[in-house]
Amino acid sequence: MVKNSISFTNQEKDIAQKIKRLKEKAGSHSPSIYTIAEFVPQLNITVDACFLSNPYATDLFFHYFTEELIESGKIKEVLEYYPSQNQTIAGVLSKHLNVSPKNIFVGNGTTEIIQAVIHNFTAEKIVVNIPTFSPYYEFVKEGIEIVYNKLDKQDNFVLNLEDYIQLIKKTKPDTIVLINPNNPDGGYINLERMEYFVSELSWVKNVIVDESFIHFAYEDVEYNLRTLIKISQKFSNLVLVKSMSKDFGIAGIRAGYAIMNEHKVNRLLKQGYLWNLSGLAEYFFRLYVRKDFLRAYEKVRIPYIQASQQFFAKLAGIKGLKVYPSMANFVLVELNNGATSTDLTAKLLLKYGIYIRNCADKIGLDGQFVRIASRTTEQNQFVMDCITDLFRDV
Amino acid sequence: MVKNSISFTNQEKDIAQKIKRLKEKAGSHSPSIYTIAEFVPQLNITVDACFLSNPYATDLFFHYFTEELIESGKIKEVLEYYPSQNQTIAGVLSKHLNVSPKNIFVGNGTTEIIQAVIHNFTAEKIVVNIPTFSPYYEFVKEGIEIVYNKLDKQDNFVLNLEDYIQLIKKTKPDTIVLINPNNPDGGYINLERMEYFVSELSWVKNVIVDESFIHFAYEDVEYNLRTLIKISQKFSNLVLVKSMSKDFGIAGIRAGYAIMNEHKVNRLLKQGYLWNLSGLAEYFFRLYVRKDFLRAYEKVRIPYIQASQQFFAKLAGIKGLKVYPSMANFVLVELNNGATSTDLTAKLLLKYGIYIRNCADKIGLDGQFVRIASRTTEQNQFVMDCITDLFRDV
Repeated sequence: MVKNSISFTNQEKDIAQKIKRLKEKAGSHSPSIYTIAEFVPQLNITVDACFLSNPYATDLFFHYFTEELIESGKIKEVLEYYPSQNQTIAGVLSKHLNVSPKNIFVGNGTTEIIQAVIHNFTAEKIVVNIPTFSPYYEFVKEGIEIVYNKLDKQDNFVLNLEDYIQLIKKTKPDTIVLINPNNPDGGYINLERMEYFVSELSWVKNVIVDESFIHFAYEDVEYNLRTLIKISQKFSNLVLVKSMSKDFGIAGIRAGYAIMNEHKVNRLLKQGYLWNLSGLAEYFFRLYVRKDFLRAYEKVRIPYIQASQQFFAKLAGIKGLKVYPSMANFVLVELNNGATSTDLTAKLLLKYGIYIRNCADKIGLDGQFVRIASRTTEQNQFVMDCITDLFRDV
Repeated sequence: MVKNSISFTNQEKDIAQKIKRLKEKAGSHSPSIYTIAEFVPQLNITVDACFLSNPYATDLFFHYFTEELIESGKIKEVLEYYPSQNQTIAGVLSKHLNVSPKNIFVGNGTTEIIQAVIHNFTAEKIVVNIPTFSPYYEFVKEGIEIVYNKLDKQDNFVLNLEDYIQLIKKTKPDTIVLINPNNPDGGYINLERMEYFVSELSWVKNVIVDESFIHFAYEDVEYNLRTLIKISQKFSNLVLVKSMSKDFGIAGIRAGYAIMNEHKVNRLLKQGYLWNLSGLAEYFFRLYVRKDFLRAYEKVRIPYIQASQQFFAKLAGIKGLKVYPSMANFVLVELNNGATSTDLTAKLLLKYGIYIRNCADKIGLDGQFVRIASRTTEQNQFVMDCITDLFRDV
């Protein structure tokens, strides 16, 4: 046995094998806790620290949903009738975002938006950072060149904007992608630098900036949102992508939107995407723009950011772990104590019922990496205690 | 005033104008009753006979949904977590359909499936019957030729299969579409003829057969389902499309599936469509394949067919209306009494709160046509009484 490795009982080994196979089957994504629970019923999963969402915001949404749709009985209409069409829901979002509906495209989750944009607008070459969210390269059509900009572990995976701009100038792509904060490391580029970046790339046809985790990033003590939305009208090549499942924890509803120039929105709408949102997604967007909901949301957003950052700082204190700086609601953790990410993931699940993201499949990550999501304060403390406990035994 | 036209008060005229503008804005689809209610709040809509669904099946689904998701509290998980991926849900459907999951592609409503299939597999030329469901020609990409096969009013819009086959042989398309029963006229081609049709077209790359209304068609006194699913494996060029919102009245959930060859499914999956179903759509499909649900569904499917056919026969008895034969849950009605479809639609809405489909925008329909959906037995009777009442005054 390798020094400092995590040990398993024979029974645990069997289950660990089963989990490993499930993961392999799921490709570059992780099996959901339901899939795992279905195939490995003996597991008792208590914390889903693979799932990237603010659980307090889910509770808030669910409170409104229960009162306004369930208790009123309106849910039946929401399930039965056709939801509004794409541009009607864009109109709902318009006032809140202060962006014309002609520049808004709503999607059945961000994966649909990424697919639509890359399939329709990327004709020759795309530049993406790695590690990254895999659909940005997986959805690229055959025959299109993918240029990877590898973020360096030695630099804490911090994106060097100048180098990135130079690479883009050199390789002359028609599409570039930047996720801010980045997934899976949480690296953040401040708004001023992002504005500079976008302004340097006015000649690139499609500048995709994915701000799905932006609700967790901050630059001041009031945790004000720092997004490119305000300047989106200045750059007609900018495609600003936003998932709603990270901040609101409603992945089952499938809701996202993107801001892009009118020509692009029209081109997508001409090709379909007519009724791509469900009745529940429409309800969510109509709720999302309401002042009462937004006020209540701020009260669960800010404390969650604070608790998340405290959690990350505590994790960094565990010997043998390197915790990378994150402005998202998760951290990338490197194991420097001889344990493998596959063993740690399996052991946490088997012994404590904690599910974390094994990053063994992530291209661009050389070493032993896991990604741990911030959940409720109590769950974060439990994760912290269990990892501490586990590595005390190693 | 033209003889036999429907008359409006001045106040009605204003509202009718408003409704007309809404319809124009909605393009080749009809505004939902919610959109109408929002813009014309003085209306009291009592029957939505524009909406093509079995309301008894909606009630049945809602009964299960309430008991299994709402009362149990499981709804929160369904909203919060990622649903299963496309191929997992295909696996759920597989046993019920007796088709390998490799041949099943699930979609966020049929419009997504139509879009995916036509965008990815139609490269040169498509042949469609008109009148038809508009996405079949609207989603065709620029540069692709559309050949319309106009169904003849004199033949009751019955599709002459031999003529259609000859047209297809002459024009050599890579894609052909046949909706059975057809929308908007409900024309039905029996299974034996459909098998012959498909077997004659083995050289066409994509033979799209849309069976979204097949649950309402029958050829025997037991109302057994007559679908091409059983022979789908014999024809690798067949794409069998099925919406779930017509038979189950769950348009807000967005759920459909298609059966096609493995190569096609793989090509679509490679391009995304990873998490295109919501948690509720997944719940629906898991429910749909259950024996207890299917047994209960048959008990609302068959009486609904019987009631619908009785309704259509009664409508046909109204002087001045020509009701075309339908094996779907709606009828196409031609006005031969001097009234226009626009006036009838507006008047029914204003005077009785009945919303029907004005077919003035449907290409291939020359004349005054409306489409009336079968709803509950009581609502059908009300629609019948109101139209009788209205034309008594004309």
